[in-house]
Parts: sequence; C-alpha cells; structure tokens
Amino acid sequence: MVRQEVRGRPFSVICKISDWMIRASALVRKTVIASRLTKPQNWMHSIGPPPATISILWLREKVAHCPCETATYSKGIISMSIQTLFGIELPIIQAPLAGVQDSALAIAVSNAGGLGSLPCAMLSTETLRKELETIRAKTERPFNLNFFSHEMPVPDEAKAKAWNALFADYYAELDIDLLTAPSAPARMPFGQEMADLVHEYRPAVVSFHFGLPSPELMTQVRNSGAKIISSATTVEEALWLEAQGVDAIIVQGYEAGGHRGMFLTGDISTQVGTFALLPQVVHAVKVPVIAAGGIADATGVRAALELGAAGVQVGTAYMLCPEATTSAVHRAALKSDYARVTALTNVFSGRPARGIVNRLMRELGPMNPMAPHFPLAAQASAPLRAKAESLGRGDFSPLWAGQNVRGCKEISAGVLTRELASRILEC
Amino acid sequence: MVRQEVRGRPFSVICKISDWMIRASALVRKTVIASRLTKPQNWMHSIGPPPATISILWLREKVAHCPCETATYSKGIISMSIQTLFGIELPIIQAPLAGVQDSALAIAVSNAGGLGSLPCAMLSTETLRKELETIRAKTERPFNLNFFSHEMPVPDEAKAKAWNALFADYYAELDIDLLTAPSAPARMPFGQEMADLVHEYRPAVVSFHFGLPSPELMTQVRNSGAKIISSATTVEEALWLEAQGVDAIIVQGYEAGGHRGMFLTGDISTQVGTFALLPQVVHAVKVPVIAAGGIADATGVRAALELGAAGVQVGTAYMLCPEATTSAVHRAALKSDYARVTALTNVFSGRPARGIVNRLMRELGPMNPMAPHFPLAAQASAPLRAKAESLGRGDFSPLWAGQNVRGCKEISAGVLTRELASRILEC
Repeated sequence: MVRQEVRGRPFSVICKISDWMIRASALVRKTVIASRLTKPQNWMHSIGPPPATISILWLREKVAHCPCETATYSKGIISMSIQTLFGIELPIIQAPLAGVQDSALAIAVSNAGGLGSLPCAMLSTETLRKELETIRAKTERPFNLNFFSHEMPVPDEAKAKAWNALFADYYAELDIDLLTAPSAPARMPFGQEMADLVHEYRPAVVSFHFGLPSPELMTQVRNSGAKIISSATTVEEALWLEAQGVDAIIVQGYEAGGHRGMFLTGDISTQVGTFALLPQVVHAVKVPVIAAGGIADATGVRAALELGAAGVQVGTAYMLCPEATTSAVHRAALKSDYARVTALTNVFSGRPARGIVNRLMRELGPMNPMAPHFPLAAQASAPLRAKAESLGRGDFSPLWAGQNVRGCKEISAGVLTRELASRILEC
Repeated sequence: MVRQEVRGRPFSVICKISDWMIRASALVRKTVIASRLTKPQNWMHSIGPPPATISILWLREKVAHCPCETATYSKGIISMSIQTLFGIELPIIQAPLAGVQDSALAIAVSNAGGLGSLPCAMLSTETLRKELETIRAKTERPFNLNFFSHEMPVPDEAKAKAWNALFADYYAELDIDLLTAPSAPARMPFGQEMADLVHEYRPAVVSFHFGLPSPELMTQVRNSGAKIISSATTVEEALWLEAQGVDAIIVQGYEAGGHRGMFLTGDISTQVGTFALLPQVVHAVKVPVIAAGGIADATGVRAALELGAAGVQVGTAYMLCPEATTSAVHRAALKSDYARVTALTNVFSGRPARGIVNRLMRELGPMNPMAPHFPLAAQASAPLRAKAESLGRGDFSPLWAGQNVRGCKEISAGVLTRELASRILEC
C-alpha cells in the first residue's frame, strides 16, 4: 500500500503544483476528479512547466479530516510523500542506533511497513556484508543504510595525553590494566568499500550523518539507485544539503538522542528545538522534510506532520524493543527516572551527543573542551565502560537517549512501528 | 463565548472523570446527552468521588474532527479548559514581554479574545497603577499581570568589580561617561506593594516567572480571586508548581525567547525542547498545561494542542506588532536573517535568557561564569546599550527572541491573536 500523504497547509491559498509533483500524486489526481472544482480536467491538463496555478481550497473540504491522504504542502509546492519516495507504507523511519542495534531491528521495522535502518559506521566490511545478507534474506521491503561522513582527524598526541590523564584515577579505581583493556569500536567515515557494498546490495535509501561524503562518492550512491538523505540541525545546514541534491532532509531537533548531525557549526548553543526548527526548514526547502527529536508516540507523529513534516525518524522509542541490542545497563537507565535528565556531551566520542546524565558526564562534562576530535576521544572511556558494565554499572557508558523516553516500550519493533503510525491512519 | 476545549487523547481507553471535571464541562455534558451511549444518564448521575469510570470512545465519534470543542484529556482526566478557567474566548496567552511592551499590547490581545499580559517586574508601583487604570479603562476582558519571583541577591563587590572590568574597553570605545550614564531598570521580585495592587485591581490571572513567591503572598493573590500560573522548564519544576497549588502550568520549552523561568536548577544543559517537554508535563500533572517556545503561527498552535496543551503562550510573534514598544534596533534584528541564530545568554542580566546573537554575546558569552547574580549583571551593559542604540546599533542590547521568528508580523496584535487561533476554530 503506497499512500499519498495529504496536508494542505495553509489550505486557503492559491498554490503552484509542478509537473513532477502532480505525476507523483495519484491520489491527488483522484481527489481532483472527485472534487467539486468547476473544471478539474483543466487542472489535470495543465501539467508541465511553468507550473500550473490552481486553487487548493477544495482540498480542504476533501481531506482536511483525513491527514493520511494528503500531500505535504509548503511554499506553494505539494511535495512527494516519503512513502512514494522510498516505496514504504508508513512515514516512519527507525533512526539508526549505532551500538544498540543490528539488522534485526531494521528488518522488523521494514517488515512492519516503516523504513528500517542499519547503522554501518561501526561495522567492518565483513560484518556489514553479513548483515546485508541477513536483511536480504528476511525482508523484501525497502531499508536504509546509515553512514557517517565525518573527516578522520589527524591524531594529536599532546591532546590525547592530556585527555587520558583525566582518566587515570578512574583506571586505578576500577583496577584497569590498559594493556589488556578493550579498544573503542572504530567509527569510519563512508568510503569506497562501503560504496561498493551499496552498489552491490542496492538499499532503497542511504542516510548520512555529519553532512555528506565527497561528490564522487555521492554520485556512486546515487547511481546505485538509492535515495540520499542526511540530517540538518539548523536552517543553514538544511539549505546546504538541499543544494547538494539530497532527496529529503532529516530535521534533527535539539531533543534528539545520540550524536548531533551538526556539520556547519560545532557550537551547541546554536542548536534548535524540533518545534521551532521543523516549520522553518519546511518553509526553507522544497524537498520532503523528516522530523526527528522528541517524537515518542502516535500523538507526536501526528503533531510533527501537523507542523509540516512528510514523515518522522524515531530512535529512542525503539531502544527497549527485544530486537534492539541495547545493553542491560542502558535498558535499566531508560526505564528509570534518571532518563528524564539528559544532556549533550562530548566526553564519550569527541562530538556532542545526547545521553542520560551519568557519572562520567557529571565529572568530566557534559561538554569538555579538552576532548580530542571525534572519534578519537572514545578510546579513553572504553575500558572503563566495559569494566563498569560487567559490574552492572552504567557510570562510564554512553547512555544515548532523547529528551522524551516516554515512548520506550518493551514491545516488538513491528508493533511499535504500527502504533507510531496509528493516529495518522485512524481516519 | 466560552467554549470547552476538547481533545480526547487517546480516545480509545476507559477513563475516569472526576466530579470537578464534569461540573466544569458543560459542553461535555451536552455532548454526552447527544451521544449514542446506551445510558448517558447513568454517566451523568455517577458524579462524585470516587471518580466515575466511563468509556470516552464515543467522544471520538463526536469530536474527533472538531478540536475546538473537546476537553483536554490526560491520564484519564478531562481537564478544565483555560478558556473556562480564565474566562477568555481563545486559548491564546500573549507572553509578558518585559522591556518591549506596556498595557497597549495587553489590551489589544484581551480585546481580541486572548489573554493579554502586562509585565510588571520592571515597573514602579506608580507606573503599574497607571497602567492598571489604563487597562481597566480600555477593556472589560480578563487580563494577566506577570511578576518575577526571584530572590534579590546580596551584592558581591568583588564579583561586580571583576565583571565591570570586562566592560572597560567597551566604555572607552563608545566614549561612555559612567557618572552620567543611565542605570539598568530595576527588576524587583513580587512584594507586598504589588500584592496590594493585585488585590485592588483584581486581574483574572497572575503569572509568575522564576518559581513562585512566598506562601503568604500566594495566599493574598489567591484571595484576590486571581488564577495563579507559573512557568516550568522541566518535569520536576512542573510537579513542584502543581504541589504549590497553581491553577495551570506554562511549559517553557528550550525554544522560548527571553528569560528561562528555571528555578530548581541553574544548569542550562537540563533544558528541554517543547516537543519533548510538553507531552511529558501533560502526562505528569493534572492541571491544564500551556505550551510556550517555538510556537509562531496557527499551525504551531494546533500542533501544541495536538501534543496535549490546553492553550499556548506566544511571545516573539507579537514583537513587531504596532502595539509593542520594541525598539528600532530590536525590530530591525527580528526582521533580519540574523534572527535565525539565537542563544541562551546570561551577559545581559545574570540569568539565562534567549536572544539574537550579537556582539556582546559573542565576545563575553553567550554564558559567562563571571556574571553577577540576576539582576545585578544588567548594570554593566546598560550604558553601552543606550549609547549604541542612539547610534542605531544593537551590539549591546538584549535582542530577546525565540528560536522561531517566522511568526513576527507587522500587524495589529488583535488580528495576530485571531490568526493564531484560526486553525483551532476552523471546524
């Protein structure tokens, strides 16, 4: 079932609908025919540049009470829905959750009609290939592969030394032998090997975090047939992404858990809440906008669509699902009252990311100017995290979570996906 | 016109409706009688503790398409609407904008059916009395008086000296003579003289910022007949306010312009975006919740109600109205692209407040640990502000604004108020 999303905001204006848009909108066509416009055929036949100018006042009569059957309206343009764009049934994207999921979560969400995402940045090529085989074996639905597009920094020995020195007392306290301690997992930027796998396995969607890779790699991904999306944390970043030709933009509000996708600024004081950022980006760009940050349940999904989103990306709510690989200490934290207090911190990786405030964040952060560049800062806490978790403590773990954990439920990811969409399908 | 607000979220559950709630809800009664419940009378007669248990599934049929005629539903309780609570027509509160408005803005909003607010903390008793006379002469509608409830700090000479030293170069640059320079306006906490004026002029609503005043003063305000509201920036603050007996709670999301109302914490890393904070507070408290922060237009109002708010408080959108006293440099900044970049800063007053990033914020802030306690930090920049503004520059002015200035319009406050409510009245 591919449905058009309908949202005529504001309904009472004259708008322009381009050729592309009309071709994308089978249901809009149907509605036009069924409408009481004097000459709907005139509108139907006016396809082609320059865009036809029509009144969509009638759309309101037809669909105002049916939010699941309208097209996203913004700046006089009815955008293609993300259901059509990605070939999915529900406008629900499961946010890639690096470190707390593998292919199982993505498969469950895709099979339920949403867009499941596999976070790839912490996977070796071999593991990624295995995961892709698993996905291909277990679903025929579209899925999303997520990559990081940061630049790997040149290690700075003095900075690393000063940073490590902050951890010496913790190593002593937990009796850590650094010679045998585990390393932090690698976080590699998108490169040729990954592009080759994209070409081979042809995901419907490839999403990037921290901007976009080189134009050459972008072209390879595009030639694979994948739609390309990335996150914006400001209007400027959204405009930049649109200029690079992305197919849709994820608006990552301040509320979102995990790493901020910010790439034109490193200053967290510039970061904007979902309620303010979403409508501004919807107004500023022509591509569909996907809302992320603070969206925890069906009501939140509906409100995001009300604010102009074509769909949503939800992460935190999936973290208690049995298909997620969320650790025991992380699950316990998400279920506790502590989960109400999160902050942006760079102590775990070197980049700002939102997690539940714990001991390391309190004592060294939440933001610490001494932290080495992403992802080099991660090594210092990795041994502490492993040891503390083995003792049942999350004091040194990145307990990623958004500012609204109310949606976290210990139910299957498929059921959760349908629940999230329930208030946009109820009419 | 006093209407009940109806929002049955989620509609499909069994809920408890208490005696008080049913008595408050004339329209709900009417709807029950009109509904297809087998025995609506049974429900009507089951008033009184313990709360009656009824199915509100029928409410959905009746009102799902009519968001302006339902009661706020949360945790099994249908709350009194703020229209009933305050005696207003529209669930729109004009946020008190200390420093950029006087009674004219409040009168315009109240006369349009919203709740106009007069910020009182920077007014002398004499000026406040004059303003109250003006309001009484120009409207018979309910209005809100807003006061600060901070504690005045003991001045710390060493801290003041160190802070002032940061401004020496600026004074030299702008050729300021400190002996003749203007002082910062006083910001006094709510006290006995103000309580006497409340008793004399009997506003429908008294709102506080930075917590609440002493229990003795609270009792005096309550005895005047005023409803009492205050701002919460976290779930904890909302629970605290409810425990003190406020009649409604303003949820101030991270996006909001001007001073954060935070009072249980001074740590801005704890501050939560509207999209995440609003539904959590709605779930946590029984009193009506008013959403603030990032709400700029009719779509935002509707989305806030979708997320469970009983009403909204809108500030930034009113700042270009002719009835506001917004300065020329402030108006110019709000109309510029710079308005997109705001930050929380304490350099203007000593407390975190959101404003458009300007020179003083860039060079001394945005947050500066050396700033004296609120409101003592304000004195240092006051002479610079006056001089720079006389030269047409906003480099040293607090250019308060929220993270979404898209709603700012140079139209009358009355028209803006009706516009803000237009998407909840359209059915």
